[in-house]
Amino acid sequence: MHYLEAVYRILGDEPVDVRVESILLEQTIETPRSVAAQFEFVREQMMGSVRRIVPDAPNGVLATLSLPFVTASVDPAQFLNVLFGNSSLHADVLLEDFTPPSTVTKLLPGPRFGIPGLRERIGVAERPLTCSALKPVGVSLDDLAKICRGLAEGGIDLIKDDHYLADHPFAPFEERVRICQDVVEDVAARTGHHAVYVPNLSGTPDDVKRQAALAHHAGVRAVMMAPMLLGLPTFHQMCAKELDVPVLAHPSFGGVNAIRPSTLYGKLFRLFGADAVIFANYGGRFSFSASVCNEIAGSLRDPWLDLTPAFPVPAGGMNADRAEELVQFFGRDSILLVGGSLLEAGDDLREKTARFTESVRSVARTMREAH
Amino acid sequence: MHYLEAVYRILGDEPVDVRVESILLEQTIETPRSVAAQFEFVREQMMGSVRRIVPDAPNGVLATLSLPFVTASVDPAQFLNVLFGNSSLHADVLLEDFTPPSTVTKLLPGPRFGIPGLRERIGVAERPLTCSALKPVGVSLDDLAKICRGLAEGGIDLIKDDHYLADHPFAPFEERVRICQDVVEDVAARTGHHAVYVPNLSGTPDDVKRQAALAHHAGVRAVMMAPMLLGLPTFHQMCAKELDVPVLAHPSFGGVNAIRPSTLYGKLFRLFGADAVIFANYGGRFSFSASVCNEIAGSLRDPWLDLTPAFPVPAGGMNADRAEELVQFFGRDSILLVGGSLLEAGDDLREKTARFTESVRSVARTMREAH
Repeated sequence: MHYLEAVYRILGDEPVDVRVESILLEQTIETPRSVAAQFEFVREQMMGSVRRIVPDAPNGVLATLSLPFVTASVDPAQFLNVLFGNSSLHADVLLEDFTPPSTVTKLLPGPRFGIPGLRERIGVAERPLTCSALKPVGVSLDDLAKICRGLAEGGIDLIKDDHYLADHPFAPFEERVRICQDVVEDVAARTGHHAVYVPNLSGTPDDVKRQAALAHHAGVRAVMMAPMLLGLPTFHQMCAKELDVPVLAHPSFGGVNAIRPSTLYGKLFRLFGADAVIFANYGGRFSFSASVCNEIAGSLRDPWLDLTPAFPVPAGGMNADRAEELVQFFGRDSILLVGGSLLEAGDDLREKTARFTESVRSVARTMREAH
Repeated sequence: MHYLEAVYRILGDEPVDVRVESILLEQTIETPRSVAAQFEFVREQMMGSVRRIVPDAPNGVLATLSLPFVTASVDPAQFLNVLFGNSSLHADVLLEDFTPPSTVTKLLPGPRFGIPGLRERIGVAERPLTCSALKPVGVSLDDLAKICRGLAEGGIDLIKDDHYLADHPFAPFEERVRICQDVVEDVAARTGHHAVYVPNLSGTPDDVKRQAALAHHAGVRAVMMAPMLLGLPTFHQMCAKELDVPVLAHPSFGGVNAIRPSTLYGKLFRLFGADAVIFANYGGRFSFSASVCNEIAGSLRDPWLDLTPAFPVPAGGMNADRAEELVQFFGRDSILLVGGSLLEAGDDLREKTARFTESVRSVARTMREAH
């Protein structure tokens, strides 16, 4: 028998044994034990067990449960359901961590490109990659093209749509993708720097499928989606069946109060197929600490289940001046995403961008030489 | 201009004006104001505004923001993105409530059947409906058929799959649906009681589409999906384009720590198309209070945006003996879902179920006569 091990943090004052037993039932048979006892297969195969309970003061206990994987392994929604379905409805139960059996990769094979594939496609072997965003929403196609050109000429590796760019009347998806892709190809032809334009796919499954086809037709070399907006199973299907380019995952609508950030943005996003994952960096607009960010980066890159490692993409109110600090902190296998701080330059966008991308190159060079 | 009004609860000790301004920027232009100022259309149409800030001790403040609806209205994922995308990444910012403009129904027309449509299809005009579940996961097809028969003969109106029933090798979707549908049709032919069997659709968009087609082919009269597992945009597409029967929404993976339960399970689920919404009832396995449950029921049923009202379906460790209390509390436009408590009866399932359904009928009759 294969088991999915799930670790829950349980807060509150109720007797721990009672809580853990009720969470075990919730995540397995969801009936009183007396009901399950009526059925031999259920009794013998479906009950799961409590592996251990460890006090973790001041913040409750950590309970590790073994859940029968056969229940979870049939589709990506059931995987989430068994992992943290109804238990997410308890305000005092958080999903801390999980360990699936190695057979999980039959259902969820993880990143198709990840760090090595994205590096190969971008043609940058050693240094951290740079990323910026086309924003704000409401900017005309002409202005988006101008921003895209400034960022590409300034040497940015990945130029992504802001996650608010969708199929809006003022910058329709099809035209926007064609124009921005033309810009990066034109800059590449003139300067030799092949920036990758990354459009944002948004909407229902039919919407994102249509947008993926348009992006493919335009020659786009990577796309972005927000797994928690679209739904993780939809995100997974897009990665596994509809897209032949690397996928950048955006954290929007993901929250931080129910699932430990490294578990959601690190493990789950990677398992469901993200090649690179954007998350709220420390010292920016969000309250993630440096240690949380370090943990997310580790979850994306560390050896796990034979999955290809995925790029961490720290972001969120990051200043271009922090290049050195961030390269030192996240190391070479990272993508530094700086948006608004570059766009503030206005007409000097190309120059400010060039200073940022050169400083990343230079810090990375120094770090290599120091080794 | 149309605006989406969003109300956030902001906790923590930072100066409120600074926090609210930063949330306004996060949910609109996601750049410093100086960047937006470079573009006339952005400056004039995309900035949104702070409507009011009200202290709500001891729990922080409630801040109401007006967000430009044109950004949100292009697809269901963008709607969520603008409503609570990046702001969900703050542990101290919760989505409390929202008011979309009436034009939202062009994008999201809400329940197609709702309370009146489901009543008409079931043929029960006045009393609360009853619902039970086929469970636990792992039960064989023969035993599922036996449970289904007991519940149908006992007079249950809706017999839903447990949310853990997916396309498992021990009870494959296609055979399960055919067998359970046969059972309810057979019981209807013999007794005149037309129970509705409600299979659970689970997986990627392609999985749930395939399952919807199989269910349709089998003559199924309602289905269940978990919007937060599948993704709300996927749920919406299934309701709007792929299904011609009422849809029961399951709360799994929905959490309670980031979005006020009545806003998520009431307003959002209804807006995205649920005809009936299962939620954790007070006094059961979950910690929702009676007032939270009352609020969820209100959000589903109250007049709002010309949307069809949807059925509240209180559930979660409910005891069949509570029929009277629950009918009194939720009123006639509700569906009482009792699962494990009936299944404990084992071979006496039909009798225990009949006592439950008869007590609901009888309490409802008494209430009608008292008016």
